[in-house]
Amino acid sequence: MPIADVTVIPIGTEGPSVSRYVADIQRILAKHQEAGAIRFQLTPMNTIIEGDLPVIFQVIQEIHNAPYNHGIQRVATSIRIDDRRDKISTMEKKLESVQEQLKE
Amino acid sequence: MPIADVTVIPIGTEGPSVSRYVADIQRILAKHQEAGAIRFQLTPMNTIIEGDLPVIFQVIQEIHNAPYNHGIQRVATSIRIDDRRDKISTMEKKLESVQEQLKE
Amino acid sequence: MPIADVTVIPIGTEGPSVSRYVADIQRILAKHQEAGAIRFQLTPMNTIIEGDLPVIFQVIQEIHNAPYNHGIQRVATSIRIDDRRDKISTMEKKLESVQEQLKE
Amino acid sequence: MPIADVTVIPIGTEGPSVSRYVADIQRILAKHQEAGAIRFQLTPMNTIIEGDLPVIFQVIQEIHNAPYNHGIQRVATSIRIDDRRDKISTMEKKLESVQEQLKE
Repeated sequence: MPIADVTVIPIGTEGPSVSRYVADIQRILAKHQEAGAIRFQLTPMNTIIEGDLPVIFQVIQEIHNAPYNHGIQRVATSIRIDDRRDKISTMEKKLESVQEQLKE
Repeated sequence: MPIADVTVIPIGTEGPSVSRYVADIQRILAKHQEAGAIRFQLTPMNTIIEGDLPVIFQVIQEIHNAPYNHGIQRVATSIRIDDRRDKISTMEKKLESVQEQLKE
Repeated sequence: MPIADVTVIPIGTEGPSVSRYVADIQRILAKHQEAGAIRFQLTPMNTIIEGDLPVIFQVIQEIHNAPYNHGIQRVATSIRIDDRRDKISTMEKKLESVQEQLKE
Repeated sequence: MPIADVTVIPIGTEGPSVSRYVADIQRILAKHQEAGAIRFQLTPMNTIIEGDLPVIFQVIQEIHNAPYNHGIQRVATSIRIDDRRDKISTMEKKLESVQEQLKE
């Protein structure tokens, strides 16, 4: 299961606050999570999304497009994808695997 | 026209060289460029891709998947998208716009 | 207070697992947190670091260098910095600010 | 020789254009290049900087700080570092190495 972390930055916002755009994106992601398409988690710096790769890309495209509905004319989106295929990977397992190492 | 810059890092390559994977990806991109779907440019640090957003995401998914065909089991892909919709943006125009500013 | 999210990817690791390198980096960060230089948080996709900008850069340089002590010869480090100077920003406040918006 | 690619995004710019901020940063980098501290190259998506790691970090900190001199109160900077230590790496050599592979 690939995992992605994403930031969507609206450019041309008059002020430094972008939390309304982030909140809008969280609502979109919550809708997809409820439908079982993805799982996601908001961190102080980005949103982490877990799901099938084509679904992740589709959802990222949707959240990238969201700020244009609020008058924004330029968006800078940054995505990191971590995609391990030799074993099942989840957000929880990745953290546990580091915790295991820290105990040694 | 959105523009993306992408790095695809294969993890678990025995040695530090990844140029064969980068070359493989360039061949995939050249095929799509010849078909008129995208334009792309290799830089020393990443590949810049210009095209419609759904096409860019489709092509990135394809190049992200490429290293798995060579025995790699984990890939870390990093993407930045710059998507300006108030005027037509191209790789060339973005550079020209900075050059104009530098003359002033 | 600027906040950064960082991934340090060792290239040439024989296999797809990198958790021992991540754990090593967590130990370095814990040492700096105990000394009061930074605060940090591990997420499933990256490490978030809060601190003064010169200190953040110094600590990132140290964790970027860590894998070379274990025989790795190439490291790809990815950093996003969010640096707001019109008001005091912390990891907690950034999350709260989005939660506030979601209630409206 | 590590190589970095960097984007510095000013947040809260009234409009979607950021070329004046990019130009300002190019002037700072040109000054450091003339002094022999770094080499750099502007691409349509980012700026690539080659130099010693502590110098790269120092220069990135300087260009990250630049937009605050023009009334901006929030900056989002994104950095990728590629640092290979088993052989001398330059921007030109990295491109040549891929070209070699493409001939085969």
